[in-house]
Amino acid sequence: MNDILKQIDEVLEVRKSDSPDSSYVASLYDKGIEKILKKVAEEAAETVMAAKDLEHSNGTKTDQEHLVYEIADLWFHTMVLLASQNLSSNDVTTELQRRFGLSGHEEKASRSE
Amino acid sequence: MNDILKQIDEVLEVRKSDSPDSSYVASLYDKGIEKILKKVAEEAAETVMAAKDLEHSNGTKTDQEHLVYEIADLWFHTMVLLASQNLSSNDVTTELQRRFGLSGHEEKASRSE
Amino acid sequence: MNDILKQIDEVLEVRKSDSPDSSYVASLYDKGIEKILKKVAEEAAETVMAAKDLEHSNGTKTDQEHLVYEIADLWFHTMVLLASQNLSSNDVTTELQRRFGLSGHEEKASRSE
Amino acid sequence: MNDILKQIDEVLEVRKSDSPDSSYVASLYDKGIEKILKKVAEEAAETVMAAKDLEHSNGTKTDQEHLVYEIADLWFHTMVLLASQNLSSNDVTTELQRRFGLSGHEEKASRSE
Repeated sequence: MNDILKQIDEVLEVRKSDSPDSSYVASLYDKGIEKILKKVAEEAAETVMAAKDLEHSNGTKTDQEHLVYEIADLWFHTMVLLASQNLSSNDVTTELQRRFGLSGHEEKASRSE
Repeated sequence: MNDILKQIDEVLEVRKSDSPDSSYVASLYDKGIEKILKKVAEEAAETVMAAKDLEHSNGTKTDQEHLVYEIADLWFHTMVLLASQNLSSNDVTTELQRRFGLSGHEEKASRSE
Repeated sequence: MNDILKQIDEVLEVRKSDSPDSSYVASLYDKGIEKILKKVAEEAAETVMAAKDLEHSNGTKTDQEHLVYEIADLWFHTMVLLASQNLSSNDVTTELQRRFGLSGHEEKASRSE
Repeated sequence: MNDILKQIDEVLEVRKSDSPDSSYVASLYDKGIEKILKKVAEEAAETVMAAKDLEHSNGTKTDQEHLVYEIADLWFHTMVLLASQNLSSNDVTTELQRRFGLSGHEEKASRSE
């Protein structure tokens, strides 16, 4: 399932050679890093707003889906940011692996618990 | 590799039954959604700042690593937010799959290109 | 000089009876609070970016002016937010007065220092 | 009333010669611009959250006061940012005057309406 991140990374690479008016991502690359960062900030704000709606509705399914939708937008735009700097989601998951990942040995031990 | 997201989701679930003073994540759950959202906003701001540093340094490796570090922080805190609402990174990757994923058929076609 | 805040508050009130397509502010009111909040978040992000540029340029006049410009945008959009909720900059300055203001007596003492 | 902004500017100047552990503002100066910017981002997020609470409560007085409180925090921290860069609220109100202010002539006309 999570290969979707890898698939998106690949699409984001391909978009670099597209003309600015051919796709949303190509237009973001063309507008530059400040535009991409404004989108990241905007999606973070939309995540905060969706979470507040969910808090006030005591967890309706619609508000749950809205929060997931906004976080997907946020992750996506951070991936556009990464691609624009010749980085990728793989760098992020590697960093998370470094922090939180179980080594093969630990994982084996964990499974035997 | 991306199973790290799943591993983190599992750790975030386990933290729900921990006492607030036993871990950082347990203390965030205890402080509530506003505290978690402030962290998401703060990590988004740190992502913006790290990207600006990278822009001004013309892409040093240290600044690239710093940007990756901050985006990892941002993703992690959105995962804490999701867990606090009984959601997970799987919901986000499923949403991204829905938007961007190649169906089996398309993927096959894609590979034959 | 600071009567400009009061003047803006008055303009923001007048805009409430304008048609949405007659002015930028009227269009913001029409689009609702989420749109206004996204603008506040965006202007906060632009403030952060301008401050980072200023940090890296070691304080050029152009970057100083840019930072002032973005903070003016941020204050302005918080004033639109206040107006949309039937509040005004006067409520904010009153709150700041409550926190930081010198009473007439203290102020006199302060001046004699 | 708005002289409170000027009073705060003066206090923020005085704090520059204070030791870092003598006041909150002095500690912010000492920690540097990134810390100040994180506070600006955090206060912007708290403004967004307070506005969402107000939206959901349909405008209770407590939530109105909370929004005003958070915007006061946001303005205050932008003033700390300005002071740290040898700028002040006067630069912001001058910029707003330039954009929105009535000239003496227009103002006179306006008053006679």
